[in-house]
Amino acid sequence: MNSEKMKIAVLGGTGNIGKGMVLRLALQNLMENGVKNEVVIGSRTPEAAKEAAKEALEELENCGFDTSKIKIRGKSNSEAAKEAELIILTIRFDHVPPLLKSIREELENKILVSPVVPMVKVGSVFEYRPPAEGSAALAIRAMVPESTKVVAAFHNIAAGKLQDVVKCKAVHDSIICSENEEAKKTVMKLTENMGCLKPLDGGSLRNANTVEALTPLLINIAKLNGLKDLGINFS
Amino acid sequence: MNSEKMKIAVLGGTGNIGKGMVLRLALQNLMENGVKNEVVIGSRTPEAAKEAAKEALEELENCGFDTSKIKIRGKSNSEAAKEAELIILTIRFDHVPPLLKSIREELENKILVSPVVPMVKVGSVFEYRPPAEGSAALAIRAMVPESTKVVAAFHNIAAGKLQDVVKCKAVHDSIICSENEEAKKTVMKLTENMGCLKPLDGGSLRNANTVEALTPLLINIAKLNGLKDLGINFS
Repeated sequence: MNSEKMKIAVLGGTGNIGKGMVLRLALQNLMENGVKNEVVIGSRTPEAAKEAAKEALEELENCGFDTSKIKIRGKSNSEAAKEAELIILTIRFDHVPPLLKSIREELENKILVSPVVPMVKVGSVFEYRPPAEGSAALAIRAMVPESTKVVAAFHNIAAGKLQDVVKCKAVHDSIICSENEEAKKTVMKLTENMGCLKPLDGGSLRNANTVEALTPLLINIAKLNGLKDLGINFS
Repeated sequence: MNSEKMKIAVLGGTGNIGKGMVLRLALQNLMENGVKNEVVIGSRTPEAAKEAAKEALEELENCGFDTSKIKIRGKSNSEAAKEAELIILTIRFDHVPPLLKSIREELENKILVSPVVPMVKVGSVFEYRPPAEGSAALAIRAMVPESTKVVAAFHNIAAGKLQDVVKCKAVHDSIICSENEEAKKTVMKLTENMGCLKPLDGGSLRNANTVEALTPLLINIAKLNGLKDLGINFS
């Protein structure tokens, strides 16, 4: 699969992280290396998705980008998944099982990217609550067809920085895990092209557990230490 | 307790991380803010500890430091623990239970610092294997007297960088967790004075699980991405 020309569905693309992903994926079409992404926002209702697509395009225009080369559309989750080669699940973990069940037949042979982090707020603190499989990524792998290539990525990204496409070029690391090396490479390339993230090979999906757990830790550390929009770097 | 003048035992101070800790703690006495640490290396035999203390002093001398203000001694683990106010456990997790049992009465009212990470190598990959309590830190808390103040710290530090006291000023983050706010502050101050680490308040010991799990992830990521001596930064 060519990461330079790809139809990408962002399911739950109307949320905070989803919105940032849509903008960053769409902007790759303005790079000089010939990337041609078509971004399809998925939502429970096509109306909400279409509205989010319109807003994203307007935002890029308002920021001064040439949107003539940019394609962002909105569809229902199932329509978006159907036409995409790569599907990103920017939804809450408890919404994942019914959604995957409803779009199961659209997932055959596709790359499914999970930035999903199962966590709960206990008092003022966030706690990681992985399912019995060990992580959201492993639980998701168990819910999809054998041919679906599950990749865990984009867990530890501050939504504010991701959305700030004009100012934020700060490079945080994004750890990417999968059993499928080709799918992992495709997602690593896509990550690199986002302009604000450095992909790191995180090995197999078994490692996704720790990567997911980092998200509540980041939120807690930010709060405890008076910091904001924290990302992570390995050096 | 005053972090500026303290007797500190590094149990297992003959290992890689232990050696680096000893050097960094001892060098704090050369700072202009009046820190006076006495460092006592603990080992199973006092001879090995005395030898390690001699080597550490020689290394600091060879690096050109004025060692007249520096105190590093070697004792048995139990003697070292007895005279220290703060005890750092730089040993393998499977050695922790017998050691803590043997020095239990020396632990009353003291600060006990755990950088311990329970992990195993499976094939070429390291995996985090926490005990039933959820983390080494929580297991250790269950093994010591009620009055012992357990602090989890120094998990994600590259031994090579820690030991390189001349060249390595690179500031990595060290996430520090404890139920005892005063003990946590003491360890955070000690960390700041090491010159190569920035302390971050990691909240309660319940969060130590994720911090411990980061160590095998760091090792795996280093290997998978051709990197070395990785540390972590939040920004």
